[in-house]
Amino acid sequence: MNMDTKTDSKINGIDTAALEKLVGAVSADPREGEVKFEVTTSWKGGTRSETRVEAYELAGQRYPRSFTMSNDEPEQLCGGNSAPNPQEMLMGAFNACILVGYVAGCAMKGIRLEKVEVRTEGQLDLRGFFGLDENVKPGYDQLSYRVNIKGDGTPEAFAEVHEMVKATSPNRWNLAQPVRLEGQLVVE
Amino acid sequence: MNMDTKTDSKINGIDTAALEKLVGAVSADPREGEVKFEVTTSWKGGTRSETRVEAYELAGQRYPRSFTMSNDEPEQLCGGNSAPNPQEMLMGAFNACILVGYVAGCAMKGIRLEKVEVRTEGQLDLRGFFGLDENVKPGYDQLSYRVNIKGDGTPEAFAEVHEMVKATSPNRWNLAQPVRLEGQLVVE
Repeated sequence: MNMDTKTDSKINGIDTAALEKLVGAVSADPREGEVKFEVTTSWKGGTRSETRVEAYELAGQRYPRSFTMSNDEPEQLCGGNSAPNPQEMLMGAFNACILVGYVAGCAMKGIRLEKVEVRTEGQLDLRGFFGLDENVKPGYDQLSYRVNIKGDGTPEAFAEVHEMVKATSPNRWNLAQPVRLEGQLVVE
Repeated sequence: MNMDTKTDSKINGIDTAALEKLVGAVSADPREGEVKFEVTTSWKGGTRSETRVEAYELAGQRYPRSFTMSNDEPEQLCGGNSAPNPQEMLMGAFNACILVGYVAGCAMKGIRLEKVEVRTEGQLDLRGFFGLDENVKPGYDQLSYRVNIKGDGTPEAFAEVHEMVKATSPNRWNLAQPVRLEGQLVVE
């Protein structure tokens, strides 16, 4: 599966000329790299919800878009098992983010990829979610992931990209480092 | 939109008797609350990926399930704009997780809900992802969220649930606290 579309600047399906132009613009003026994301999630009964994406902003400009994502819990956790659960979706968001890092990083090095696959797993202790023991964290202690990659790069070049992704992936950072969460409750 | 199905133990579509039974089992034997999640994400060309859920484990038992989630980047970020991007999916995973907390927490208090909506937003500075300035973090500095809730609870009862969710939501914890990430690269 080679995604090269035979145009001059596309490698791995990434337009490297466009990417270089974007990097240059952000380097020249950091405001060009200000991105704002927003999502709205609505209750659909039981443990089921639907998340809508309606727009995002880049460099102060708003770009409409329209996507939905569904979540539910498995039956054993009192749900309807109609969709991935939020913990699985969090892992998917991590995987998808680092995957973009590998694909773009390889493209910028001229490495043509045949395969990237990321597998992630983690364990939770439900005593945390149920509030049964305040010494038990509700979240993951650790997430383990394995990246399988195949392409025309050297092992050293792939290792460089691997380190670069560790340092620069937004969602890896969001999980590995604390993010400040400002929550507000509005009772209607 | 009242999700009460008129059976004795269902409130907000949550079977509170089943939930109490699960909490009791985990309280009696923490192994009953050991949950393992796993997802696999495959590259689909450019910035596009697909994440598959095939099973999860509860108390050592494996439960097959089958879901897929897609991600892509907007066109301005060198993607095909075919699906939510990983940062939006991360927010959705956060929202869906705390939403389950509000719905289950209210059910356990006997509060019948009409509406729960969670809106989350956050800003990224692309200098982090592009590796242009090591002092700029690649991820979110802060996520701001607003929960709109409507039901027959008192403002005090809703505030109690709000605090409980802050303390016990797995994905809130996963973002607010550091998670250890163990990554392995396999060059095929």
